[in-house]
Amino acid sequence: MNGALRELKQRLAEIHDLEQALGVLNWDQRTTMPAKGGPARAEALATLGGIVHERFIDDELGRLLDRAEPLAAELDYDSDDASLLRVVRRDWDKARRVPTELAAAWLREGSKAQAAWLEARAASDFRIFLPAFRRVHEIALRWAEFQEAGDSPYDAFLDEYEPGMKTVEVQSVFDVLRPELTAIVREAGDPADDSFLDGDYPVVVQQAFLEEVLTRFGFEEDAWRLDPTVHPFATSFSRTDIRMTTRYRPDNLRAIWAAMHEGGHGLTYQGCDPSLDRTPLAGSASLGLGESQSRTWENLVGRSLPFWRRFLPELQQRLPALGSVDLETFHRGVNRIAPGLIRVDADEVTYSLHIILRFELEQQLVDRSLALEELPEAWNARMQDLLGVSVPDDAHGVLQDVHWSRAAYGYFPTYALGNAISVQIWQHVERAIPDLDSQIEAGEFRELYGWLRDRLYRHGRKFTPLETLERAIGETAIDPQPYLAYLRAKVGALAA
Amino acid sequence: MNGALRELKQRLAEIHDLEQALGVLNWDQRTTMPAKGGPARAEALATLGGIVHERFIDDELGRLLDRAEPLAAELDYDSDDASLLRVVRRDWDKARRVPTELAAAWLREGSKAQAAWLEARAASDFRIFLPAFRRVHEIALRWAEFQEAGDSPYDAFLDEYEPGMKTVEVQSVFDVLRPELTAIVREAGDPADDSFLDGDYPVVVQQAFLEEVLTRFGFEEDAWRLDPTVHPFATSFSRTDIRMTTRYRPDNLRAIWAAMHEGGHGLTYQGCDPSLDRTPLAGSASLGLGESQSRTWENLVGRSLPFWRRFLPELQQRLPALGSVDLETFHRGVNRIAPGLIRVDADEVTYSLHIILRFELEQQLVDRSLALEELPEAWNARMQDLLGVSVPDDAHGVLQDVHWSRAAYGYFPTYALGNAISVQIWQHVERAIPDLDSQIEAGEFRELYGWLRDRLYRHGRKFTPLETLERAIGETAIDPQPYLAYLRAKVGALAA
Repeated sequence: MNGALRELKQRLAEIHDLEQALGVLNWDQRTTMPAKGGPARAEALATLGGIVHERFIDDELGRLLDRAEPLAAELDYDSDDASLLRVVRRDWDKARRVPTELAAAWLREGSKAQAAWLEARAASDFRIFLPAFRRVHEIALRWAEFQEAGDSPYDAFLDEYEPGMKTVEVQSVFDVLRPELTAIVREAGDPADDSFLDGDYPVVVQQAFLEEVLTRFGFEEDAWRLDPTVHPFATSFSRTDIRMTTRYRPDNLRAIWAAMHEGGHGLTYQGCDPSLDRTPLAGSASLGLGESQSRTWENLVGRSLPFWRRFLPELQQRLPALGSVDLETFHRGVNRIAPGLIRVDADEVTYSLHIILRFELEQQLVDRSLALEELPEAWNARMQDLLGVSVPDDAHGVLQDVHWSRAAYGYFPTYALGNAISVQIWQHVERAIPDLDSQIEAGEFRELYGWLRDRLYRHGRKFTPLETLERAIGETAIDPQPYLAYLRAKVGALAA
Repeated sequence: MNGALRELKQRLAEIHDLEQALGVLNWDQRTTMPAKGGPARAEALATLGGIVHERFIDDELGRLLDRAEPLAAELDYDSDDASLLRVVRRDWDKARRVPTELAAAWLREGSKAQAAWLEARAASDFRIFLPAFRRVHEIALRWAEFQEAGDSPYDAFLDEYEPGMKTVEVQSVFDVLRPELTAIVREAGDPADDSFLDGDYPVVVQQAFLEEVLTRFGFEEDAWRLDPTVHPFATSFSRTDIRMTTRYRPDNLRAIWAAMHEGGHGLTYQGCDPSLDRTPLAGSASLGLGESQSRTWENLVGRSLPFWRRFLPELQQRLPALGSVDLETFHRGVNRIAPGLIRVDADEVTYSLHIILRFELEQQLVDRSLALEELPEAWNARMQDLLGVSVPDDAHGVLQDVHWSRAAYGYFPTYALGNAISVQIWQHVERAIPDLDSQIEAGEFRELYGWLRDRLYRHGRKFTPLETLERAIGETAIDPQPYLAYLRAKVGALAA
């Protein structure tokens, strides 16, 4: 192997190690850390994040890239090394634009703002969050000024999560979704009964059930965890140390779908090719692609009739309070379509409308046409407009999500893109595995996971999102129509 | 403030942040991490540990020290800045002797050996541990070669945990303890009944009880945690993020004293002066001094009659299976003296004999007069000799402790020194707080914690261990006699 490439890889492996450490600090902060640990943790994140940034944008790393790149011409485009050189070049050019102090300040202020957000959310008072939010928001806008000329500030944010995608492209997908989804909500008619989701459901029993479900999905023994948190997320410190979280409530069952959602992220990490371990190619090509898989396991598997035909009797055995509900009622209930206040509790149809709202507000925050202090009012007005619901307080409105405490603009739209991509891919899965329904009904997910791993997960970040999509299913653009067709068919079937 | 001193402090604060990150990686590994996360975690620890070492031994840090040190002459010896310059000079000179790769390799191989130790312990087979142990052992001996000339290799290890103390000094304390402790064990006669410690004691109930006890000891709300682990330890990521652990068993109560022990360490961290936050002066002057406080809260408080007069009725209310035992039986039982196999389960008398055994074996390992593969046999022979017990298998013998998986030689003796120091200090506490017993009986620990904090904990690492002892109680040497007198009195009272 080329000496420059070898040294480049060694440096990238060490950076990967430090990112693993950052990941552990974050995971601990969000699942475990006592509240008063926040200020010291913010310092640690800032210092370590600064070092990661510094090491990555190092001149010598750039020289190693320069020296190794000629090699790429001799390599197969799809080889790990050629992909590594492409991806690292792109990441390095992007990262070089940002001063280290700014990257560190973003982490530090983001960590503090997250603590302020938790406090504000508990008190349901946006004003508690505002000062810390303003600091991290201003840092983010300064960051955008360093990004590629020609991009709008929002393009710069979007590019962090959906590499290469432009705001206008998202807009064109959302322009299709917005009227169609609004129409589907109307067609769905009166919401189904889902009162059985509320009840006396001990957390330990939910935990045991979910551990069984995730094990069946295909997780390797002794290589993952599922823990409680406030705002569910998944992360991984290696292919064999995957951490998923969910938000348990002893009085309802919603943690189940949040856990299957994070399970989808976890399977994406686990399915990366082992040759990508300890490289920047481990992971997912974009958040949209990643989200397509969390939505696959949460919705396409986890709200399906075959799934609950298998698991409802088991859940009822574990939870006596759920004893009386029949399969049809349960299936209708967990697919209930009803405009609501909370994104993470939203159904498959209105979910993307929650996203469209955030996408529109974010663009206004970023171009400064909306002042931060006006955000709660703007939020509430748009919720009324788009979903027809009245927001009673900040906790059930503008403070419901963690993302803005890190000024992670551009992140939200990837959720709706993921919804669309999930069904686009699922069509191919259904064709490839004709007896998929009976496998799911048997609690058997090996072939499904294997197909997704071999077609999709194994590529990690080797290719652009659309190159990855092409390798998985032979299509070269995000197509929202299968998603809309799927929703219409489901609404029709459930209304029948 | 002097510019060099300011910059020095900034660098030390960042190193402190990185050490916090290392601490979180370790804590997670020992409480939470899935088993297969080990290899990637070992890489992360090695990379981050290497960076900490590199940053600390940096030439520029040495130049800043050189430039700031003349300032110390103008400062009060007891001032924070004068202490910082003394302590950092000592640490820097020591650290400069060790190549960065060696420090990183020690962390990496230690992490791997810890995984091997867990596996070996589960299988009760030292041979599973041996290859990984040999690697970390050889690294440790290479490390010792870089230490100050004139010191024996064992002195070098000891100095890591008990700064300034020599092997011969420990030997002289242990030469007093060994025959006296052996005599006290004989005097104690037949062991008291402690069968009530075994029973049906649900872990969640033990947890709730211990959270109440630790809260009463004086921990600040939202600034600490108590979690389950295999081998209990305490650590802190800041004065307001203290992590204690204990080893719960649903069939016995021993987790209670392990938790009070770790609670003592936690109070020591919490009691540091806030002016030492984010500096290398936060912590404890030595492991022996730190251990004196864990033993204080575990034994002098947690095995005392006044403590159980208050807490036994409460524990009995929570745990019906404990219902029938009376206070006297309970108190005798938890102070039962009986030679046994396991150090962490040992009573106050035989505990130090377990340590003397390890101290002797470690010296032989370090001077290579004992080969690693002969260690189990040597262990078993000495257990017979010193404590009169037969070791049935490696899990209950040589594999019981985590320390050797990191080749942390010199660590064990500090436990026995801590036993001696705890009573040496306690004599002064009893004189200063005449109604201490009735306070403890009232479940009231504020004055006790306050006295220890103001006299001892607040100094952190500002002074040498003996300087710290002098500031706390006006004595200038470790004196084992109060400890022996206390044990004799207790044995006499319990036998009466």
